[in-house]
Amino acid sequence: MVEKMTENAIGRMVPTEVNGKQAVPFQGAGKYQPTGRKAAPPIATCANYPDDGNKTVTDIKTALKKAGIKDGMTISTHHHFRNGDLIANQVFDAVAELGVKNLMWFPSASFPCHAPIIDHLKSGVIHHIEGSMNGPLGDYCSHGKMRGLGVLRSHGGRYQAVQDGEVHIDIAVIAAPTADAFGNANGLTGPSACGLLGFALADSQYADKVIVVTDNLVDFPCVPWQIQGNYVDYVVVMDKIGEPEKIISGTTQITKSPDRLLIAEMTAQFVKDAGILKDGFSFQAGAGGTALSFAIFLKEMMKQQGIKARFVRGGSTQYLVQMLEEGLTDYILDGQTFDLEGVRSMRENPNHVNTSPFTSYNFHGKGNFASMVDAVVLGATEVDVNFNANVVTHSDGRLLHGIGGWQNCLFSKCTILPIPSFRDRIPVIVNEVTTVCGPGELIDVIVTERGIAINPKRKDLIEATKNSSLPIQTIEELKQEVDEIIGAKPEKPKLADKVIAVVKWVDGTIIDSVYQILE
Amino acid sequence: MVEKMTENAIGRMVPTEVNGKQAVPFQGAGKYQPTGRKAAPPIATCANYPDDGNKTVTDIKTALKKAGIKDGMTISTHHHFRNGDLIANQVFDAVAELGVKNLMWFPSASFPCHAPIIDHLKSGVIHHIEGSMNGPLGDYCSHGKMRGLGVLRSHGGRYQAVQDGEVHIDIAVIAAPTADAFGNANGLTGPSACGLLGFALADSQYADKVIVVTDNLVDFPCVPWQIQGNYVDYVVVMDKIGEPEKIISGTTQITKSPDRLLIAEMTAQFVKDAGILKDGFSFQAGAGGTALSFAIFLKEMMKQQGIKARFVRGGSTQYLVQMLEEGLTDYILDGQTFDLEGVRSMRENPNHVNTSPFTSYNFHGKGNFASMVDAVVLGATEVDVNFNANVVTHSDGRLLHGIGGWQNCLFSKCTILPIPSFRDRIPVIVNEVTTVCGPGELIDVIVTERGIAINPKRKDLIEATKNSSLPIQTIEELKQEVDEIIGAKPEKPKLADKVIAVVKWVDGTIIDSVYQILE
Repeated sequence: MVEKMTENAIGRMVPTEVNGKQAVPFQGAGKYQPTGRKAAPPIATCANYPDDGNKTVTDIKTALKKAGIKDGMTISTHHHFRNGDLIANQVFDAVAELGVKNLMWFPSASFPCHAPIIDHLKSGVIHHIEGSMNGPLGDYCSHGKMRGLGVLRSHGGRYQAVQDGEVHIDIAVIAAPTADAFGNANGLTGPSACGLLGFALADSQYADKVIVVTDNLVDFPCVPWQIQGNYVDYVVVMDKIGEPEKIISGTTQITKSPDRLLIAEMTAQFVKDAGILKDGFSFQAGAGGTALSFAIFLKEMMKQQGIKARFVRGGSTQYLVQMLEEGLTDYILDGQTFDLEGVRSMRENPNHVNTSPFTSYNFHGKGNFASMVDAVVLGATEVDVNFNANVVTHSDGRLLHGIGGWQNCLFSKCTILPIPSFRDRIPVIVNEVTTVCGPGELIDVIVTERGIAINPKRKDLIEATKNSSLPIQTIEELKQEVDEIIGAKPEKPKLADKVIAVVKWVDGTIIDSVYQILE
Repeated sequence: MVEKMTENAIGRMVPTEVNGKQAVPFQGAGKYQPTGRKAAPPIATCANYPDDGNKTVTDIKTALKKAGIKDGMTISTHHHFRNGDLIANQVFDAVAELGVKNLMWFPSASFPCHAPIIDHLKSGVIHHIEGSMNGPLGDYCSHGKMRGLGVLRSHGGRYQAVQDGEVHIDIAVIAAPTADAFGNANGLTGPSACGLLGFALADSQYADKVIVVTDNLVDFPCVPWQIQGNYVDYVVVMDKIGEPEKIISGTTQITKSPDRLLIAEMTAQFVKDAGILKDGFSFQAGAGGTALSFAIFLKEMMKQQGIKARFVRGGSTQYLVQMLEEGLTDYILDGQTFDLEGVRSMRENPNHVNTSPFTSYNFHGKGNFASMVDAVVLGATEVDVNFNANVVTHSDGRLLHGIGGWQNCLFSKCTILPIPSFRDRIPVIVNEVTTVCGPGELIDVIVTERGIAINPKRKDLIEATKNSSLPIQTIEELKQEVDEIIGAKPEKPKLADKVIAVVKWVDGTIIDSVYQILE
């Protein structure tokens, strides 16, 4: 595959065409003005659906056949079960039995549990994947083995792509912990309760055919209906759709590392010293160990100072739930429950509000929630001296992570990346990141165990923290210090010329390319 | 205006063109197969909206100007305040001051409080109205004074028309009892709380520009967001947007008429004798006095027999709320609160669920809720011997009522019209109704104080009630009995040839024409 490449606004070379469609290079945050109109699904009629509302069919294979599955279609699934999903593999096993080929799989994310999909990629059942590839599938893609290009989108970018008609979903399969025969569904109750189903919202609204799969069929009406049956074609009942205990990935544990605890504490202190911590403020912290620890340090500061947040954004965990239940925030606005306490709280507490990528993150809406958050704390695999950050590839070039809501969250009023200064003797602050996922113009603060760097663009933050006792330096100073400790200069990863995936920005433009690794 | 007319599937003459658009004649319930795709609103971008989410502007006139108001546009409003709406008149006063002309007003319904709109029709600010016209505006239209044709749609038909692109809304103005500066809004709280905002859902989703008007601005986030700020362009704060005490129209009182109480009791008895009244059943009764009394009789029967409904459909009133609170139903699925007890219950009780016309009634969805209701009890101004019914015009031909959800509800498993056999010495059962709003094929039972007629198509209901003590007759027998009592044959109304409005069926086809009355 010889790609025609072009340089985008931050100097990265990106393909001009992706999987047969023309691509727009990144133009800078907020620079690209979309034209045209949203995707327009076909008009349905009640005349073609059962009057009694019973849309159940016997199994997933029957549902796929009735939905008109054929070669070349795009099939979507969601990832609210994270590494406990039991549906996607079964869908493609059924598709393989039907002899269908060359599908595009469009998951909201894939996880190690989806390793069996590699067989379907090899056999040609699946042509390529557009969506986050956490672990084995990313590794497979990194080796240049996938036919089409991987396309990595943020949660908001995925909604945007579907809404704008950039990705047309032929058949959406939505695993639902509770559903009625009409297709109304939620994630709150049932043996596989996973909290919410927001990642499947776009799929339900825009796919030509929608299949709900559940292991907990209830009498109509299934209340609340996070997914509306009015968008659903078929309902399939299965024994078990997911393992909610596997929602909890290894990352949703508080860190025990002294360095990372220090970073978390410094981050909380920064939020305080910068004047962000005040009554009615808001924050979002990811589910990584450092981010969780940050939230716990922040909580203690809030209690000490009698401060209450107006809202905190989830991915929810037991720690956010405690804050809500202890009256330290009015609301949790949650896009994804990261543990079973999150599921319980969302089920029981009307102030633990389920949100969708449309609401929270879609950049092609009339605003979204992300830019209203006072401070956001996120991870990164690498940061460069221009504050560009990487979240999908490792320093060896391997594609091992999805973007999640990371890009979307960068629009917060203060974006902070607490990161260790090196990992396995490889420095995290570099001259140039392997893959740019977020442009430096949106990244405000880097917190490491050795010091804090504020983006020079944020004169307000520099001014606000000038009397802080925190070790604030320039990013160049910080980098030099780390480089000196490590000594030997790390080699840049050896990569092939072949592009194996692209990273989309939140507006559908291409911010960077991911290259094949050399063995 | 000379209309080109054509005959539809039930023998009514209807225009082939309505307000410059080609029209499809009614083809029979469930016969019309739509083609094409849904309306596709323009793609927006966050880059054009304030990062801090503050979309407030000083007043409605400023909002209209910013929204680009100009001659010939379509402006929509909703009617959740019913006769207590304070916004629509102010909108068109502002428009008049701006010198804009020839607008189409697209309310979800208009009420007597909107009589001042007549001045804007006379002056040419408003060209014509598409939407229910209850009272003075209907009367004005009946006299042939409106420039364009009135177009009457059911609640579901209005959603369908917007969704299908049949009506393009340029600017939607949504009165919201509570909202935040981002445009998230609900009807549950605030001094003007009216319950829900479902009638404005389509407007928010599909209008080019959306203005939220509130008298209760709260800090972000306004939870729950029945209207999503992600669809909203501008927010205007006003002193008072509505008079919620006027939600209660004269019709939402239990009847005191002995005849009507008898009809209500017979209707409840019919539901019981037909075997519909059983555990897990569902029903919907309108807000008229007879329908309310029916619900009370039914409730007593349920208590006596220990029967619990799975759901009851609202328009909710204190009587339905009592049923929910006494454990006689699992859920109220509510499209419109008809009194303040309904508002309170929806605010407090998660099992009092707000629904939208999309969910409940849109015929161009993948099914809707209406066909799953076991029994529905509705009013009518006239019924004919073929079970066709009228709900918009009186026997004198005057257009005085909207359709509401009436047409949509006809899809229930058993549709019952409890009606007096005559009003003001004019028989209600006639050879031919003045205006057909619902085709006889969907109307199952007529209950009058003198007897009950079952549609001959419903052999199952005839069989189920053959041993009932109820006075079941044919509709011809019933009509003859009433005609004999009245004596003199009533004259048919004298109507002009000029069509002044059309009645749309739930699928967008035209079921009948409404003619100008002669003075």
